[in-house]
Amino acid sequence: MRAYQLPKGGAGIDALHVFDRPMPKPQYRQVLVKVAACSLNFRDHMMVCGSYPMAVRENLVPLSDGAGEVVEIGPGVLRVKAGDKVAGCFFQRWPGGEPGPHLQAFALGGSIDGMLAEYVVLEEDGVVKLPAHLSLEEGAALPCAAVTAWHAMFHHAKLIAGQTVLLQGTGGVSIFGLQLAHAMGITAIVTSSSDEKLARAKALGAACGINYKTTPEWEKAAVTFNGGRGVDHVIEVGGPDSFLQSLQAIRIGGQINMVGYIGSKEGAINPLEILYRRATVRGIPVGSRESFEAMNRAIETNKMRPVIDKVFPWTDAVAAIRYMQKGKHFGKIILKF
Amino acid sequence: MRAYQLPKGGAGIDALHVFDRPMPKPQYRQVLVKVAACSLNFRDHMMVCGSYPMAVRENLVPLSDGAGEVVEIGPGVLRVKAGDKVAGCFFQRWPGGEPGPHLQAFALGGSIDGMLAEYVVLEEDGVVKLPAHLSLEEGAALPCAAVTAWHAMFHHAKLIAGQTVLLQGTGGVSIFGLQLAHAMGITAIVTSSSDEKLARAKALGAACGINYKTTPEWEKAAVTFNGGRGVDHVIEVGGPDSFLQSLQAIRIGGQINMVGYIGSKEGAINPLEILYRRATVRGIPVGSRESFEAMNRAIETNKMRPVIDKVFPWTDAVAAIRYMQKGKHFGKIILKF
Amino acid sequence: MRAYQLPKGGAGIDALHVFDRPMPKPQYRQVLVKVAACSLNFRDHMMVCGSYPMAVRENLVPLSDGAGEVVEIGPGVLRVKAGDKVAGCFFQRWPGGEPGPHLQAFALGGSIDGMLAEYVVLEEDGVVKLPAHLSLEEGAALPCAAVTAWHAMFHHAKLIAGQTVLLQGTGGVSIFGLQLAHAMGITAIVTSSSDEKLARAKALGAACGINYKTTPEWEKAAVTFNGGRGVDHVIEVGGPDSFLQSLQAIRIGGQINMVGYIGSKEGAINPLEILYRRATVRGIPVGSRESFEAMNRAIETNKMRPVIDKVFPWTDAVAAIRYMQKGKHFGKIILKF
Amino acid sequence: MRAYQLPKGGAGIDALHVFDRPMPKPQYRQVLVKVAACSLNFRDHMMVCGSYPMAVRENLVPLSDGAGEVVEIGPGVLRVKAGDKVAGCFFQRWPGGEPGPHLQAFALGGSIDGMLAEYVVLEEDGVVKLPAHLSLEEGAALPCAAVTAWHAMFHHAKLIAGQTVLLQGTGGVSIFGLQLAHAMGITAIVTSSSDEKLARAKALGAACGINYKTTPEWEKAAVTFNGGRGVDHVIEVGGPDSFLQSLQAIRIGGQINMVGYIGSKEGAINPLEILYRRATVRGIPVGSRESFEAMNRAIETNKMRPVIDKVFPWTDAVAAIRYMQKGKHFGKIILKF
Repeated sequence: MRAYQLPKGGAGIDALHVFDRPMPKPQYRQVLVKVAACSLNFRDHMMVCGSYPMAVRENLVPLSDGAGEVVEIGPGVLRVKAGDKVAGCFFQRWPGGEPGPHLQAFALGGSIDGMLAEYVVLEEDGVVKLPAHLSLEEGAALPCAAVTAWHAMFHHAKLIAGQTVLLQGTGGVSIFGLQLAHAMGITAIVTSSSDEKLARAKALGAACGINYKTTPEWEKAAVTFNGGRGVDHVIEVGGPDSFLQSLQAIRIGGQINMVGYIGSKEGAINPLEILYRRATVRGIPVGSRESFEAMNRAIETNKMRPVIDKVFPWTDAVAAIRYMQKGKHFGKIILKF
Repeated sequence: MRAYQLPKGGAGIDALHVFDRPMPKPQYRQVLVKVAACSLNFRDHMMVCGSYPMAVRENLVPLSDGAGEVVEIGPGVLRVKAGDKVAGCFFQRWPGGEPGPHLQAFALGGSIDGMLAEYVVLEEDGVVKLPAHLSLEEGAALPCAAVTAWHAMFHHAKLIAGQTVLLQGTGGVSIFGLQLAHAMGITAIVTSSSDEKLARAKALGAACGINYKTTPEWEKAAVTFNGGRGVDHVIEVGGPDSFLQSLQAIRIGGQINMVGYIGSKEGAINPLEILYRRATVRGIPVGSRESFEAMNRAIETNKMRPVIDKVFPWTDAVAAIRYMQKGKHFGKIILKF
Repeated sequence: MRAYQLPKGGAGIDALHVFDRPMPKPQYRQVLVKVAACSLNFRDHMMVCGSYPMAVRENLVPLSDGAGEVVEIGPGVLRVKAGDKVAGCFFQRWPGGEPGPHLQAFALGGSIDGMLAEYVVLEEDGVVKLPAHLSLEEGAALPCAAVTAWHAMFHHAKLIAGQTVLLQGTGGVSIFGLQLAHAMGITAIVTSSSDEKLARAKALGAACGINYKTTPEWEKAAVTFNGGRGVDHVIEVGGPDSFLQSLQAIRIGGQINMVGYIGSKEGAINPLEILYRRATVRGIPVGSRESFEAMNRAIETNKMRPVIDKVFPWTDAVAAIRYMQKGKHFGKIILKF
Repeated sequence: MRAYQLPKGGAGIDALHVFDRPMPKPQYRQVLVKVAACSLNFRDHMMVCGSYPMAVRENLVPLSDGAGEVVEIGPGVLRVKAGDKVAGCFFQRWPGGEPGPHLQAFALGGSIDGMLAEYVVLEEDGVVKLPAHLSLEEGAALPCAAVTAWHAMFHHAKLIAGQTVLLQGTGGVSIFGLQLAHAMGITAIVTSSSDEKLARAKALGAACGINYKTTPEWEKAAVTFNGGRGVDHVIEVGGPDSFLQSLQAIRIGGQINMVGYIGSKEGAINPLEILYRRATVRGIPVGSRESFEAMNRAIETNKMRPVIDKVFPWTDAVAAIRYMQKGKHFGKIILKF
């Protein structure tokens, strides 16, 4: 079978090539999945280009997100059977509850081989069945971005109808956050540097769009839109640059769940700003399989569909990553097998 | 000012008469409300007719639900001001957190005088501002039934999009439960003895309607509809009669929040049925002001409107209660001042 | 290697015999444990004698509780290594979070072979390291009874110092509940039919002992002891017989976690009794590995030791079960290899 | 009656004088308390000396902490009666649940007059009955420091036996945190610049004392003591100076509850440090009356006693504040009437 390999972290986009690899075999409580589609995350780009802060194994099969069909199950498997359509969980060993000490040691397309292969072996506890109304391409869009948004908004922040979430930009996490908020009666405020993207966000249900280029004090605009009260929750994807503004956007007692640093990794705040606003600030990692399954029930019940920007053949992975690098997309970039 | 009075609990519908009473005066942290509308609950009927299990004071001003305009505030009031449109909280002294030992001592239209009066004095902590898009008649529909549904489903059961709730009948609690579920991406299954009422429930967003007359094993129909999994939550309004079926309708690990006994007060179950299903069963009282306010934000954000069956002049309270007694209504019965 | 086998559920104590069985081999993410000690639970007796309500596989290796040393690990194991002293989790596939649909399919000494064998293979996710100060006999006492008490009191009831728990009898769950309560500043009330056992419970930290033979209205004695307030929590091990009294023992808003039915399986209550007391009643199964690990940290920090009544050689399992049948023990009955 | 008054915030210690003031009268749901003792908090010193960040009313009666006997109740009061021994709640209008928007408007000895008076009127909902075994001087020690520690550790961090808390210094919050931890089976690590104070902390139950003068990398010493795992929770009283070290002291997934800035108000951190450790960081205000009452039950059950350093006559308030300024005390400084 064939798979992409990255010789080492930071080797660059052009270092990605397809290789023949031995067909993997599922062991006890593992399943063999024939991959039908993958999707890209900003993390994948960072790994390839060398800005990812964690170790990347040599000759890594990249990509964290993928979906396909179970074609064989190992002994002892009960949760799925051959023929099931599944997605892989970013963390292969986090079925639910507290993430354990070995969480990062089993991150798909990072510490272990990822999804950009024709066949992959995954843990029984590391796959979820897809919502019935989704295609495999749509299912491949879910694992990192959507689960992160769900885990931040519902597992941690416990947002509920009538509350307000501020979503930064129109990357994967934010767009899924917007769609989930919309389906659940939660007000979503979206920021972007592009009025066109804001218009698309509104079409997906955003109650308010703020162009942070033309409104650099977007936190004030958010508070004003929310009747002066401040928003209940921010999913912080920007990093240190935007963090202080996020703190100023929330209400007294509001929450920030930090999931990324797409802006930059540099910057500093006085932590008393957290105290003064009686805020709760968390750093969170994607989410557990339990969160993924809960989200899938919400997606299925509400007939939600991931927003897909463009579909590439999987053998055009290099072109797809370059396309992501340009930052013009709105929604997920898919690789189809 | 004028108000209805019930000479004593169980005096009967015809014993209700309008009397002149002295104009009340708000003390420290109290507010004077000019009542614009009330709504009826089954509890009111029970009190008047003598089947309510708790003590009813003599010469009670009846009714728990009402809304109006603040016309005067006592000293020390900060939460509202004259001109605010408010509803009263059923429990006047439960602002939030755990209900205290004196909860029942301050229940509107039960242990203390209720809302069927031209003017009432309420605690500052016992009123909530109404959602801006609602009329005062609509606001008067909320205090008991809607807050009970909210408190059961969100404060306690913590239902979330993708889960399923079973709602018994089409009384106030169930209809509000249905509307809230619909706005929040939760699947609602409604039971009724009337196909016509089921059709109306579906129009409000019910995913499934079960006629318990023609399908006496409604719990099996609910499980089947839910893909064999059992529902996540039942709001039990029927009482001992329906309780065992409710237990059989939920999934392993599901929840029942008991709020009433509209069927009857008699019946028994083997409590091991709770253990076998690893169920959580709670008895709950309406809800706190904090729940009421959270619900109002959800109602306002989602532009929800209470379903109103019929509006009577307040001086026709006797006719209104008789109308409720017939049980043909769908939605709240309102008394307008 | 040798192991006890039960030809089928209900075959009786005398049907238990030692057989030679093939040495098991750990697969992917499994570990081989050399068993050093087991402990008995009432459940084991029920299985052997035919009163257990769930299916028991043929030629079952019985017993749910055991501890030993890891002697070999399969591929992919990270959580433990050879030489670690571990206990098995009753539910082999419940690492944390919500129990899944296959929970009961992997219950040690029930749906799958148990611990009464010289060697057992367990899931990596189905073992916990023992507190360092405990012997393997003491460690073998923990899996079912202690984890059940922990899960009921802390995962679910979230008891905290200053609250009161009522513990029925002096079986394993209740004694562990008492020890945990004592270490955590929680008031424990213990019931028993034996003044001698009550004296021992007091020596372990019980604030109050009630002899339910001489004080049949033990629920009233409990309320009186607790200053008239009612207790916060009951771990219901008695079953339907004692359930109504448990409900009457708790405060308004209190909790009952049902874990067993040592009294009998027959009896009924009016479920409105739950509503009237605004109680929360749950049926709960032992607990997750996460609960087990959290408990072990509490045990280690507080240098707690399980109460052991008597230690038998493992080859005297028949005598040990007969001894349990008499019901004169106080603390766990251990089988030592 | 007589009371101390501070002409304005920052007027300085010598500006404090005793004045005659009219006897206050309890209104609806208020109580009149004859003050028997007060205690000092660092906040009081900041207010008097001008470093408190919030507005201080003119001619303020200072001090947030006090206890006494109810001598008269206003109409409508149910929670207490004349003769009850009570302490005041720092936030007079936070009975439980979420703190509302007017929280800071009713802070004793800050936005409203405080406890350094012979008689004070408090809200019915703003007093708690004292644990029966405590004197009024001991009761006066509780309102700010102890409730802050309780609210941080149990309402928010939900610490449980077997977990570890790091407490900075030996001020009021930290000492109460230590005593509560000790009573509840939680490991406490205490830092201080004084070996003598560390010795006293160990006598109160601290498992580990770290002198941050001689061990400037105290966070590493804490992690080492905790078996390399990092602590579960830090109550951050130091402020920005110590915040980064606190982050480095916690385990992955650990928590910091920020309650003060005794070190300084200046300093900055990269917020990604929060993300990298998947930490939860909260800014919290003292706590609700519900927290105070829950704590009092824990104190009473465990017969805990506040550590009192020195008792001054109330008319020596100036000397008492000067004594606090020196920072040599260990435990609370009391003013007795």
